[in-house]
Amino acid sequence: MAAPVRSRPSGVGRNPEFGLPSVPGASQEEIRRQNLGAVLRYVHLHGPTSRAELTSRLGLNRSTIGALAMDLAASGLVTEEAPTTARRAGRPSLVVSPRSDRVYAHALSIEADRLRAARVGLGGRILDLREASRPGGMSGCEAVAPLAELVRDMQRSVVPDALLVGGAVAVTDTTRGRDGTIRISGADEALNAALEAEFVAGPGFVAGDMADLAALAEHVRGVATGINDLVYLHGDVGVSAGIIIGGRLMVGHRGHSGKVGHMVVNPDGLPCGCGSRGCWETEIGEAALLRHAGRQPGGPEVVAEVLRAATDGEPAALAAVERVADWLGFGVANLVNVVNPDAVVFGGSLREVYTIGAATVRRRLDTMALPASREHVRLLAAALGRDAALIGAAELAFDKLLADPLNVDVAGRVGTADPA
Amino acid sequence: MAAPVRSRPSGVGRNPEFGLPSVPGASQEEIRRQNLGAVLRYVHLHGPTSRAELTSRLGLNRSTIGALAMDLAASGLVTEEAPTTARRAGRPSLVVSPRSDRVYAHALSIEADRLRAARVGLGGRILDLREASRPGGMSGCEAVAPLAELVRDMQRSVVPDALLVGGAVAVTDTTRGRDGTIRISGADEALNAALEAEFVAGPGFVAGDMADLAALAEHVRGVATGINDLVYLHGDVGVSAGIIIGGRLMVGHRGHSGKVGHMVVNPDGLPCGCGSRGCWETEIGEAALLRHAGRQPGGPEVVAEVLRAATDGEPAALAAVERVADWLGFGVANLVNVVNPDAVVFGGSLREVYTIGAATVRRRLDTMALPASREHVRLLAAALGRDAALIGAAELAFDKLLADPLNVDVAGRVGTADPA
Repeated sequence: MAAPVRSRPSGVGRNPEFGLPSVPGASQEEIRRQNLGAVLRYVHLHGPTSRAELTSRLGLNRSTIGALAMDLAASGLVTEEAPTTARRAGRPSLVVSPRSDRVYAHALSIEADRLRAARVGLGGRILDLREASRPGGMSGCEAVAPLAELVRDMQRSVVPDALLVGGAVAVTDTTRGRDGTIRISGADEALNAALEAEFVAGPGFVAGDMADLAALAEHVRGVATGINDLVYLHGDVGVSAGIIIGGRLMVGHRGHSGKVGHMVVNPDGLPCGCGSRGCWETEIGEAALLRHAGRQPGGPEVVAEVLRAATDGEPAALAAVERVADWLGFGVANLVNVVNPDAVVFGGSLREVYTIGAATVRRRLDTMALPASREHVRLLAAALGRDAALIGAAELAFDKLLADPLNVDVAGRVGTADPA
Repeated sequence: MAAPVRSRPSGVGRNPEFGLPSVPGASQEEIRRQNLGAVLRYVHLHGPTSRAELTSRLGLNRSTIGALAMDLAASGLVTEEAPTTARRAGRPSLVVSPRSDRVYAHALSIEADRLRAARVGLGGRILDLREASRPGGMSGCEAVAPLAELVRDMQRSVVPDALLVGGAVAVTDTTRGRDGTIRISGADEALNAALEAEFVAGPGFVAGDMADLAALAEHVRGVATGINDLVYLHGDVGVSAGIIIGGRLMVGHRGHSGKVGHMVVNPDGLPCGCGSRGCWETEIGEAALLRHAGRQPGGPEVVAEVLRAATDGEPAALAAVERVADWLGFGVANLVNVVNPDAVVFGGSLREVYTIGAATVRRRLDTMALPASREHVRLLAAALGRDAALIGAAELAFDKLLADPLNVDVAGRVGTADPA
């Protein structure tokens, strides 16, 4: 738009919800809950922090921070300790640390070829991680029982007073059929029922889209911290995006946003598993990479081999990556024109495609994206690797605790169907 | 994604800003300000409302509402009157009405072919409206002086105690060159300086993208009230979108989001004014419609004539509209896959293209959009016509007042450079 930056209507994008009345006033109790959440969220995201720093970061006074930290410590959510090295004279400020060892969430993922289950401690530390393969054709629902098995297995080594605060599962909508073909599963209405049957689910166990949760993880703990307008692209057998707008995940009307793999970019292109033709996925998905490289269709190992060969300069593999990178830049340019993000992050196998073909991606962006959007956009390689979605799922699971830290009932309602 | 609706992580899309600490506690004064804003916003959006209804709608108690309404009335922002027909026994609840006659904003628009200036009263009523043509090649900056002339002209008939609360200008980035060709102007850094020179601008005078503000207007007062995930498409010489996500306008990192006219949909298509090729605009912009209909390039009158002819069944005109509708559906399908909106609203000349070619648009959507997103999306014709952007600009201008109704300083700082 023609408006200069200074006149950007900050009131529009950020704060008021047009059409909705403001929230009525908060009570003292609500304010306290909010402040407890602010302190716990801060140490959850930034790690051990002194009371003095919390005081200045959160804009609350020193005695308030002290009282909040003591409450959180009494509930077993944080520890407070004197710093090991006092840097200046006077009484040192106590350091508040999240109890990653004790407070944890279950983070699960139902990926195209794999099932993974982790225990993630407050503060985002992966405490335990198990995985199993996902056989071709196994539905999301069918994946729940083996996931629960992984969880039960992990639970055996949990310390007695540990506090499970919730769980979340990251789900992809692409599966590999028994015949090796890629399929797109519809909304899996039965998934929740399956989760409930295996876990004491209730409202504390939530599902999210794989790319959405990976985007969240990169935003909170990865390469995109501090970036509030973000397109995260995840590529494996399919391609999808997690889009963060003004610091909030865009989920769409029914939670189906970010299906960027099914933007049609090439009207004369190949048929796609979704029934359309020339979808972005048909040009930049792993099947396209293997096809261009002259390889037979295959799993992650074959894809990794092609990417390695391209890095080593093998002509056919390099040409294949460059061709995928060209179409990658094409779609990224379209998304940049629509979203005007601060950054685009490449994850999954697209991370390596971008790393190898960055010049090609940029060339497309230079010819197709509007200058106003193009000149400020950063292109970044994802930092969290294949753990991103699990870390994002844990963030989702922790969210209730962080909103209301002393409501231990939250934890009580969410647990595993323990065999004991 | 595979997650059922019930498990949609409401915490993610809506409330918490991941990575940011919660806002510290609000003071009593802030709570009062928030509540005053809530009452004023309610009557601004919904018109005259009884105290009793405000009590139930805003969840505040009766005496609080009474006190807030009295404060707003004392400030001249609302009136309070007994209802003309008392429907039941007992003391009737006073009706609170926005003072549309007295409290107003300036809403301006710099359109491809026109300049418009309106005085819009609280409650969204257009009190006065003037327009002038925008000659070919006139820049956004050059448009400010004639706009100010329109405003000064309007100010002559303003009642003495009227309260000007702010102003906003809607800007399009497409202009018609002197030779009739369409150009895309870059970010117009000098626009604000020009606005300041003509208006006592300050922070109260803001600029917004035309499609963004029209989207806001349709969301707040038009066909899309209550719809929180919305793509509004505006077509004239260019094509752009205002996208609302979770009730908030998506503005992008630098305010340039929604440039959907420059998504490439046809890699083998025509060169676009932006320097790329096959942009959506080259297939669904007004130039494309005229070209397909075998007409010479022309302005809005020629476009209106083709649309009328198509409605009347003239074969060439109808075929042209159908062809544009087909590409319209193509791009809409892509946006539906990316955004998963609750509704897509067609405005500008795309409103008529959609009305005539709805079946064709839907056919494209059926073959290209993923079922999960397609089955719930509503396609709607815009309701506010060419006033949409002005009404949206007024919303932007009112926003400061609605956030802090009794801070009259807001009004004092924003005014026209009165010739007196």
